[in-house]
Amino acid sequence: MITLASDFGSAYPAAMKGVILSKTDARLVDIGHDFPRQDVRAAAFWLRETLPYFPPAVHLAVIDPGVGTERRAVVVRVGDHVFVGPDNGVLRPPARRIAEGHGGDVPIEAYEIRVTDPESATFHGRDVFAPAAADAHDVGSDALDTVERFEPCSVEPLTDLQFPSPTVDSEAQTATGEVLVVDDFGNCITNLPGDFVRGHDRVDVNGEPTPVGQTFEAVARGERLVTVGSHGNVECDVNHGRGDEAFGLEPGETVRLRVA
Amino acid sequence: MITLASDFGSAYPAAMKGVILSKTDARLVDIGHDFPRQDVRAAAFWLRETLPYFPPAVHLAVIDPGVGTERRAVVVRVGDHVFVGPDNGVLRPPARRIAEGHGGDVPIEAYEIRVTDPESATFHGRDVFAPAAADAHDVGSDALDTVERFEPCSVEPLTDLQFPSPTVDSEAQTATGEVLVVDDFGNCITNLPGDFVRGHDRVDVNGEPTPVGQTFEAVARGERLVTVGSHGNVECDVNHGRGDEAFGLEPGETVRLRVA
Amino acid sequence: MITLASDFGSAYPAAMKGVILSKTDARLVDIGHDFPRQDVRAAAFWLRETLPYFPPAVHLAVIDPGVGTERRAVVVRVGDHVFVGPDNGVLRPPARRIAEGHGGDVPIEAYEIRVTDPESATFHGRDVFAPAAADAHDVGSDALDTVERFEPCSVEPLTDLQFPSPTVDSEAQTATGEVLVVDDFGNCITNLPGDFVRGHDRVDVNGEPTPVGQTFEAVARGERLVTVGSHGNVECDVNHGRGDEAFGLEPGETVRLRVA
Repeated sequence: MITLASDFGSAYPAAMKGVILSKTDARLVDIGHDFPRQDVRAAAFWLRETLPYFPPAVHLAVIDPGVGTERRAVVVRVGDHVFVGPDNGVLRPPARRIAEGHGGDVPIEAYEIRVTDPESATFHGRDVFAPAAADAHDVGSDALDTVERFEPCSVEPLTDLQFPSPTVDSEAQTATGEVLVVDDFGNCITNLPGDFVRGHDRVDVNGEPTPVGQTFEAVARGERLVTVGSHGNVECDVNHGRGDEAFGLEPGETVRLRVA
Repeated sequence: MITLASDFGSAYPAAMKGVILSKTDARLVDIGHDFPRQDVRAAAFWLRETLPYFPPAVHLAVIDPGVGTERRAVVVRVGDHVFVGPDNGVLRPPARRIAEGHGGDVPIEAYEIRVTDPESATFHGRDVFAPAAADAHDVGSDALDTVERFEPCSVEPLTDLQFPSPTVDSEAQTATGEVLVVDDFGNCITNLPGDFVRGHDRVDVNGEPTPVGQTFEAVARGERLVTVGSHGNVECDVNHGRGDEAFGLEPGETVRLRVA
Repeated sequence: MITLASDFGSAYPAAMKGVILSKTDARLVDIGHDFPRQDVRAAAFWLRETLPYFPPAVHLAVIDPGVGTERRAVVVRVGDHVFVGPDNGVLRPPARRIAEGHGGDVPIEAYEIRVTDPESATFHGRDVFAPAAADAHDVGSDALDTVERFEPCSVEPLTDLQFPSPTVDSEAQTATGEVLVVDDFGNCITNLPGDFVRGHDRVDVNGEPTPVGQTFEAVARGERLVTVGSHGNVECDVNHGRGDEAFGLEPGETVRLRVA
């Protein structure tokens, strides 16, 4: 199985599928190709929250604003999960999450993909990463070192991407974090731990008293609320509406909670 | 085979796929994940018009504005088709259409899914329905009663959703109905029977004389027309344009036809 | 394998998948269903650039503004690739590109699909082309003549679509062409050969001096540049932005380059 994720929109992913299917008989599963354009952080977040639900697979992830530059093309292995993509940070958060799911004692291995004279300078999804994913699928996660152009390298120099940690002040009953991503519904997913609001009926969000609900339907349609989202984090939402607009929040903006 | 439909947009459907593929080796077919948000009626319409074309399958349908509330999670079986989703009406129109296709003599069975402590309160697509669809696929439509958390229940208390019936006055040569859905092209699909306009060259639509065409090309580009759509119903369309804008119509609005 | 391409958006492609899977056990691969609406030229371009990467398959392509009119429904075979769709020009550019990939010596065969009383006049994707694609898949590319409703016909009368050729004046160091398509990123893909700008640092684009970059990152974010795109043609782009807006270009508009 090969999963495919990109920010390519509608026209380009199919060429990657054609390249893969010309080389190997993999089952293809689309993760999504409408991730926010050239937004490595958002893609890393969604892949971290999605790929651990999959059985062992090769995960192709091409969110690659630096395509054609000196950034490396890499393969990262965590047990029987293999990640293929640019070395810009998009691969490590999902790889780390899968390693944690195995108790953290799964070694992470890395390979650099030797790129020689790709057909294009701007579509490495098709010309570099799709063939590499097909190769990884063909040999299996145990034998990545048999692919000639995969050069073993150490993991540490790979670009990492750490999501910011929130600050929780239990005494002052405040927690300060930020919006990590806004989903298609307009829900603002923060890095604040759900436990901070659990058991409370209301919370101040950037100074505004806001109901805490277990579900969207806890408030009337069009009303703001705070929920604990499906990722375990605090979300700023609107029932049947857009939280980003109602709260005036965008990815990266500060969210300060205060419980009473 | 498991088909997947939701209003989840781009980021969330993949987690459902991962959960399913971790549990069973089903073939996955996307019906669509861009159904109008939280619009149970539109989803029920499209599923009714689409799923009967499929061979026997488990049909996962998660349009679920009441997620996390007391609404039940259910499995509905019609012969060798199995539907999995929230008990909010989205499942019964496609189930009924498939039963009708079998001459109506296929019994409809129902099961309530016992939900105990899902991982989240807001993503039952991932935490409740996807595992249930995998279980249904695993045991097969004949043996749903062997899944421990599927509790047989009667069909009648399940939430139903009936599309409104049009009023046809043959003497006055008028028919009054409404727009059921607007498709991506802007075509306004009504509940008015195609037979009412067949054989006529023109029809009054809410008082405006409008050509009846067999195809879009029956009128010049940008012109309004009425066609009999692929569902057999009257549609208000524009050739190379948007019918909803030209006719000023939205889902639920009245359409009154008069032939001369 | 059957690939599927259309301009149907989100609601209609699934009915085609259901029809196919009810008739044959093909593997389905979505090429895309968000091609610009009723834009035969754009679809022909993207299919020409995408389908040659696929292994042998039946390629269903339903961009069909003339649905229900006298335009023919056709099957085109190039070696072990089979194309199914309307006879409006959308099929021949990808078929020709695949024939060229085989050295041009692969004969192109054509069949007209006899259409008798389709279920609808406006959804031949579901009622005509999907069943034909399933039939072609079933019998295989070698035995298309065994499908009763496929009538052999000559290729020449089939509607063709030729992309315009650019004019290159080597002495004046100018090249004049046009924008073929604008991709989802806003990149303006022209018919101008990449070789014309290779080795130059700057080029005048419709009179405006513009950097030539190997990659988007060759200029600062938000800046205009010219690249050689993944199709080998000159593209007018913006790093982290939309080229169509910055250059004021749309499909079909003239692009005049001058190197110094």
